[in-house]
Amino acid sequence: MTRRVAVIGAGSTGLACIKCCLDEGLDPVCFESSDDIGGLWRFKENPEPGRASIYHSVIINTSKEMMCFSDFPIPAHFPNFMHNSLIMDYFRMYADHFHLTKHIRFNTKVWQVKKRTDFSRSGQWDVETENKDGKKEKHIFDAVMICIGHHCNPNLPLEDFPGIDTFTGKYFHSRDYKTPEEWRNKNVVVIGIGNSGGDIAVELSRVTKQLYLSTRRGAWILNRVGDNGYPLDLLFNRATNFLRKTLPFGYFCNIIENRLNTRFDHALYNLKPKHRVFSQHPTVNDDLPNRILSGTVQVKPNIRRFNGSSVEFDDGSIVENVDLVVFATGYTFSYPFLASHVVSVSNNQASLYKYVFPPELTRPTLAVIGLVQPLGAIMPISELQARWATRVFKGCKTLPPKEEMLKDIEYKQETMARRYVTSSRHTIQVDYIPYMDEIADLLGVRPNLLSLMLTEPRLALSVIFGPCTPYQYRLRGPGKWAGARNAIATQWERVAEPMQTRLRDVPNEKSSSSKWLLLMSVAAVGLVAYMNKSKFEAILQDPAALLENIKGYLPAQ
Amino acid sequence: MTRRVAVIGAGSTGLACIKCCLDEGLDPVCFESSDDIGGLWRFKENPEPGRASIYHSVIINTSKEMMCFSDFPIPAHFPNFMHNSLIMDYFRMYADHFHLTKHIRFNTKVWQVKKRTDFSRSGQWDVETENKDGKKEKHIFDAVMICIGHHCNPNLPLEDFPGIDTFTGKYFHSRDYKTPEEWRNKNVVVIGIGNSGGDIAVELSRVTKQLYLSTRRGAWILNRVGDNGYPLDLLFNRATNFLRKTLPFGYFCNIIENRLNTRFDHALYNLKPKHRVFSQHPTVNDDLPNRILSGTVQVKPNIRRFNGSSVEFDDGSIVENVDLVVFATGYTFSYPFLASHVVSVSNNQASLYKYVFPPELTRPTLAVIGLVQPLGAIMPISELQARWATRVFKGCKTLPPKEEMLKDIEYKQETMARRYVTSSRHTIQVDYIPYMDEIADLLGVRPNLLSLMLTEPRLALSVIFGPCTPYQYRLRGPGKWAGARNAIATQWERVAEPMQTRLRDVPNEKSSSSKWLLLMSVAAVGLVAYMNKSKFEAILQDPAALLENIKGYLPAQ
Repeated sequence: MTRRVAVIGAGSTGLACIKCCLDEGLDPVCFESSDDIGGLWRFKENPEPGRASIYHSVIINTSKEMMCFSDFPIPAHFPNFMHNSLIMDYFRMYADHFHLTKHIRFNTKVWQVKKRTDFSRSGQWDVETENKDGKKEKHIFDAVMICIGHHCNPNLPLEDFPGIDTFTGKYFHSRDYKTPEEWRNKNVVVIGIGNSGGDIAVELSRVTKQLYLSTRRGAWILNRVGDNGYPLDLLFNRATNFLRKTLPFGYFCNIIENRLNTRFDHALYNLKPKHRVFSQHPTVNDDLPNRILSGTVQVKPNIRRFNGSSVEFDDGSIVENVDLVVFATGYTFSYPFLASHVVSVSNNQASLYKYVFPPELTRPTLAVIGLVQPLGAIMPISELQARWATRVFKGCKTLPPKEEMLKDIEYKQETMARRYVTSSRHTIQVDYIPYMDEIADLLGVRPNLLSLMLTEPRLALSVIFGPCTPYQYRLRGPGKWAGARNAIATQWERVAEPMQTRLRDVPNEKSSSSKWLLLMSVAAVGLVAYMNKSKFEAILQDPAALLENIKGYLPAQ
Repeated sequence: MTRRVAVIGAGSTGLACIKCCLDEGLDPVCFESSDDIGGLWRFKENPEPGRASIYHSVIINTSKEMMCFSDFPIPAHFPNFMHNSLIMDYFRMYADHFHLTKHIRFNTKVWQVKKRTDFSRSGQWDVETENKDGKKEKHIFDAVMICIGHHCNPNLPLEDFPGIDTFTGKYFHSRDYKTPEEWRNKNVVVIGIGNSGGDIAVELSRVTKQLYLSTRRGAWILNRVGDNGYPLDLLFNRATNFLRKTLPFGYFCNIIENRLNTRFDHALYNLKPKHRVFSQHPTVNDDLPNRILSGTVQVKPNIRRFNGSSVEFDDGSIVENVDLVVFATGYTFSYPFLASHVVSVSNNQASLYKYVFPPELTRPTLAVIGLVQPLGAIMPISELQARWATRVFKGCKTLPPKEEMLKDIEYKQETMARRYVTSSRHTIQVDYIPYMDEIADLLGVRPNLLSLMLTEPRLALSVIFGPCTPYQYRLRGPGKWAGARNAIATQWERVAEPMQTRLRDVPNEKSSSSKWLLLMSVAAVGLVAYMNKSKFEAILQDPAALLENIKGYLPAQ
């Protein structure tokens, strides 16, 4: 009998879960409390309780080749960094193409998810839902996937701000910010230099009389636009990941921090934090240096207290006549429909094996998907977790004993605590490539570099030195996709295409980054040769094919 | 008897002219047609005919140390790139400090400026004005300074756009653009990739459904924020200027273009023009690459024709439902109050000796000030022109014979034609340092590098390797200012100060640019030593003083 799976939430993660269930022959039923897909990414004029809400101009910080689902590349003409409306377009294409929508029950809220009395034998769950007419329903499911993300409840730490009750201006959480118009010629303080805080500060600074950006710690600021104008996150590749793993943490941080300081000296700009670049979730903001250098954004320390319309900062400086304070202080997550012993959350920390499975359950039939904050894109991670979880539901993969899982969880928490600044922001941090490879190993889809080098050296070079695009996890194993090779071979073309909107007067020349890639490629060919002498001799007999091989990894000209 | 000078216009140039007249003991009367100073830089909700008009968010593209008047540094706490409201604050400080306002007659328009009948003897002018009540007045002046800038008449070349009469959307010149709100979720085309076009495109792209930036030629895009976050224009120094003059044009262009391509590959972004970086007035835009990479700005070729609500481009692509077209197509200038034989203007080209004096006049008593478009800031140039012109009025300096002046004008026009793309934009181009030095030579205030090296090596290093700030032209000669040395010694402090708005957690370390500066300094010391062996030996006897000398040129830590 087909196993029925409850998918809670139809955001990007929920969609991936429905798709993975279908791929594995499971029967998904997705409950979505709103009337549409997209979750976080669907812009709504009015925020709804219990869900995140974005502002009008939000553009994603990860580029299209890095953020797409692994068997569904984003259309070539879409821009590299997509506005939220385009992200929604992509999600709708995905849902249409794989016929996902018919599995979604909209306007249906999940009230309770409870182990059935025979759980230890059946692994089944009682799920209670309520539709918008107030009609309650009870369901039985063989498995549950929780896909509600980690931007559920706005974190508004008013208690940390003495005098906030005397404040005569307006204040709200960043989720309530939509557009800047209302604040023209006003004085505004934005608290927090995360991605929301930075974005909102920069946008408001174009209209406000003065914008103050208050930060306790400072931050390292990354860019979307990397060297030669390529998306910065395309530098996430296995070669740089190898360097990151191999070099001492401090040394690698130095390299990156020096690069960032070349863009703008973080000390000169008073943003340099005490912590290292990889000890905090990165803030991506291309416009901030220009706004600071023009004084339209003024960086300030933490707020000491409010007093009427004035704000006093930790350095004793006071700003008068503040009209608005935006708390860009993040979100917390919780699972109110779930008994706390199933998934316990405290201080934004959930005890989950590989951030997915509660280790205490006697049957592995409940998975939390997408509960990670990656250095990289979350969509491919959710998708890979879903592929693994559905295989576990089916019994094709098993989990280790509880003790082993707990040990792994503890180890991860300790590693995170050592590396990151202590903050409720840093409880679910993962690095994109290592975490993807970890899950891919469990699932059996991690690309086998050695075998690729021997059999398809051209592809191997792309996998090692090219961006670690999600297609790499569709080359083999369960869920293998025939289109993966071509998707990898054409990824640079999709990067360049959206900008081909004007007749080109001048032919493009090889950029220095492609020269660098060429060099790396030659080095890899050397490695291949060393590891497989006979194959190398065969290649040497056909140098034209070799050249053709190398050319494939360079950005499209 | 004190000579009376009519100053036409009370923008930044007019203010400098009043000040220079006073410095030279002349009696200035400034006629300003509006009710306030500031000219171009004063934001007005409603554009007035016959004058430029700026949008709300305009921030100047030259940094404060490079754009200030030479004896009146911009306050240390002012940001490096100032919003138009701060520029107005600075102008008001300048006017207050030097008591300029009492010499200005507001709401008074100049109708006619005519040689008196005895001009060949007296050099005097009849000036006819009209105040806002319509009352006309006649005045006699010994000299006239025209300070109306070159942003007088919007250039709206509708005849170049077939079908514009059928266009159902709205269109206007960039001078009529004020704020973006009205165009939320609309389709907008901006024509022209000059500084206005780029700025407006980037700003509108945050609210529009889609923004198209139409450019015939493409452009090289510069940044405000240079290496390590210092204002890019602080790189204008005598050492780089020497390189620019010495290296072949194409080679120097290569160097700069490669640097620009490192930020973003102009070919990849479809912006690469056929012409070289120094063959076009530069467009400065820090945000454009990010907006293009996110697709919110789409670069398009020239418009072929309009048809109803649609716009067809030269590549045949058509955009439907265009709501607005902004013509960022620049300005032209004219002198309607002046007989055309005095200053003849055709194709935006005026025949003026050193861009200041009409060569045909038998008496040099009329000067056009600020009629240049510099690679650099215009304010110090206007001021230096005014210092020279007032000395000429007084007879302290003489002009060469007419033939020599005409030859110089012709030479300059030919040089410009060879270097620049043919366009009405490129008729009054000057390079900041060479032009400043040229005028300073005529006036006798060009810093004498050799003598400085011998007598004040520390200052000499700053003058050669530090940014070519306007204070350099107050070190000697007429108008010498006692504060100039200190202004140069403290210029880096004023660059850093506006960003000291938060307690610094972490001490700043020497940036790589300061290391570079150190290296250059040592090289210069070598040069000094070579040129003056005995002085060098003296320095060697006091190495501490040498070290102190060198430290002075590094950015403040």
